[in-house]
Amino acid sequence: MDDMVSAILNGSRRAVARLLTWVSDEAPQATTILTQLYPHTGKAWVIGVTGAPGTGKSSLVNSLAKAYRAQGVLVGIIAVDPTSPFTGGAILGDRIRMRDLSGDSGVFIRSMATRGSLGGLARTTRDAIRVLDAAGFDIILVETVGAGQSEVDIVRTAHTTLVVEAPGLGDEVQAIKAGILEIADVLVVNKADRPGATKTVSALRMMLEIGHPSARTHMTQHHGQLLQTEYPANRIHDDAPIWIPPVIQTIATDGNGIDELVNAIQNHRDFIQAQGLDTLLERQRIEIELHERLREALIQRLLQTTPNDYFAQVIRQIQSRQLDPQSAVNAILTSHADLIS
Amino acid sequence: MDDMVSAILNGSRRAVARLLTWVSDEAPQATTILTQLYPHTGKAWVIGVTGAPGTGKSSLVNSLAKAYRAQGVLVGIIAVDPTSPFTGGAILGDRIRMRDLSGDSGVFIRSMATRGSLGGLARTTRDAIRVLDAAGFDIILVETVGAGQSEVDIVRTAHTTLVVEAPGLGDEVQAIKAGILEIADVLVVNKADRPGATKTVSALRMMLEIGHPSARTHMTQHHGQLLQTEYPANRIHDDAPIWIPPVIQTIATDGNGIDELVNAIQNHRDFIQAQGLDTLLERQRIEIELHERLREALIQRLLQTTPNDYFAQVIRQIQSRQLDPQSAVNAILTSHADLIS
Repeated sequence: MDDMVSAILNGSRRAVARLLTWVSDEAPQATTILTQLYPHTGKAWVIGVTGAPGTGKSSLVNSLAKAYRAQGVLVGIIAVDPTSPFTGGAILGDRIRMRDLSGDSGVFIRSMATRGSLGGLARTTRDAIRVLDAAGFDIILVETVGAGQSEVDIVRTAHTTLVVEAPGLGDEVQAIKAGILEIADVLVVNKADRPGATKTVSALRMMLEIGHPSARTHMTQHHGQLLQTEYPANRIHDDAPIWIPPVIQTIATDGNGIDELVNAIQNHRDFIQAQGLDTLLERQRIEIELHERLREALIQRLLQTTPNDYFAQVIRQIQSRQLDPQSAVNAILTSHADLIS
Repeated sequence: MDDMVSAILNGSRRAVARLLTWVSDEAPQATTILTQLYPHTGKAWVIGVTGAPGTGKSSLVNSLAKAYRAQGVLVGIIAVDPTSPFTGGAILGDRIRMRDLSGDSGVFIRSMATRGSLGGLARTTRDAIRVLDAAGFDIILVETVGAGQSEVDIVRTAHTTLVVEAPGLGDEVQAIKAGILEIADVLVVNKADRPGATKTVSALRMMLEIGHPSARTHMTQHHGQLLQTEYPANRIHDDAPIWIPPVIQTIATDGNGIDELVNAIQNHRDFIQAQGLDTLLERQRIEIELHERLREALIQRLLQTTPNDYFAQVIRQIQSRQLDPQSAVNAILTSHADLIS
């Protein structure tokens, strides 16, 4: 185990690959190693990339990785597919990337898919980020497929979130969905050589300024969950400047606009750090993570110590109106008498 | 308390109004009454109505209520606003309805908004439905504002779900969002006198048939959460017929298409019952509800028995890298030694 830890800290690709497999499988031996690695984390800058299918997220991540590599920066890529372990979307994405990035030991790519457990993917993605962080990767790109609630949860682990749009996909409306504009730190209009790109850009700018004022203060909406803390907006006091998400046009397939995007990400990072928001946002991320892990651990322990038959019986009793749901909950918690006392 | 129970069972509007306020405030005295009412529930048919703002959901709910009233059916309306207690959206909706429906003792209207607790709204909405059900309302219309994850959760408590679209809102794409098509039992194109209505209808039909095959088998995607049961699709065996969501055009403001919509809802209800799916779907709803209530009860008990200072300290230790998140969870659960044993 100690060998594994030092191998990771020395950036061994083999050790990283093996540990990521354990993390993704939620294998128990990963836990001890993650605990030992944890003090060595917190150095990487995590960039979340989300947006509807067809916007070219994978190509964009690919181009960004190349741009960072040109700066000599080590890049980790995690492609998250919450939809299904069977879609193969993430795997396809890897293959495309492999052509450009294979053979470069400064890049590490890993796909992650759900293995059934709800909420498990956000947890394993956080752990995977930590493995790459401890292994010395400076920039970690986390790409999600789709834009539902699970993607939003995953993206909340990032330091800078890119929301990717493309012209001709009914973008103006698409952006509204799932509060996706509200999580954007930088908006990217990819495939900017397509007709309608300028319209898409101005529609997004308009929404940022008028339709979605929330986009400008999105951090106010993030609450810590354990302490019920209301965190300040994306500024530390009332007179501090506000971060307004820039809209960047790119053509990821030929690298167009990628330098501007790298700059925009750096500007966001500088802003966060100059305003002293990094510590605050990290605390909030930790609070949310701890809350989620506790919730999950509690229900898992309950499920493990309760026979399936028992739940089936309770559900039958509720369905036949012999027992109401709240009394059922009370009975279950009482039968685990010292559950929390 | 017993007086309150019998008053509800006798359909007293005053008692219903009072109990709904307690439910909405999550007042402790509601619990005992809900337990006593529970055996008298399960008779109402619950219709969920969701869709983007601007599609005219409130007018549609209004017209549906009038149509059911013309049949002599008692109608309960719950307008759910998960976005904020301050938007006033639900209240405005009530005012418009009041003009048409006020003075009719066969209709009961109540707005529900979040009071802070995440996930609380799904729970209080379920309870509010039970109050109206026990009070003898035959049809309960549950209208949600917006179409995010919380709305989807709320809509999953319904027996028939209507997804409302309108022409000229970029509908084709809008429908994709948040898997909203996948939850539709009946699709409604409201404001059908607007230009583009026919296009919207055919786009939706195409999506149902080609783009979103999942819409046809959406019930497969609902899993029970406690027993990890995979429930069959919207058919009980492989040779049974499949429910294909019809697309109905309406102009809610002048009642156009409302009879067709009422028929479509009845067809869905008949289909569910004829196929024996009602028992199965109810079991699934109960399983999901019990899981959610258990999760919430466990974390609440933990939060209540743990001083805020303690969490603040743990979060500080995680942030300073003295402690990793998983070890923190283990420590917290161990300090509540007999938590679940």
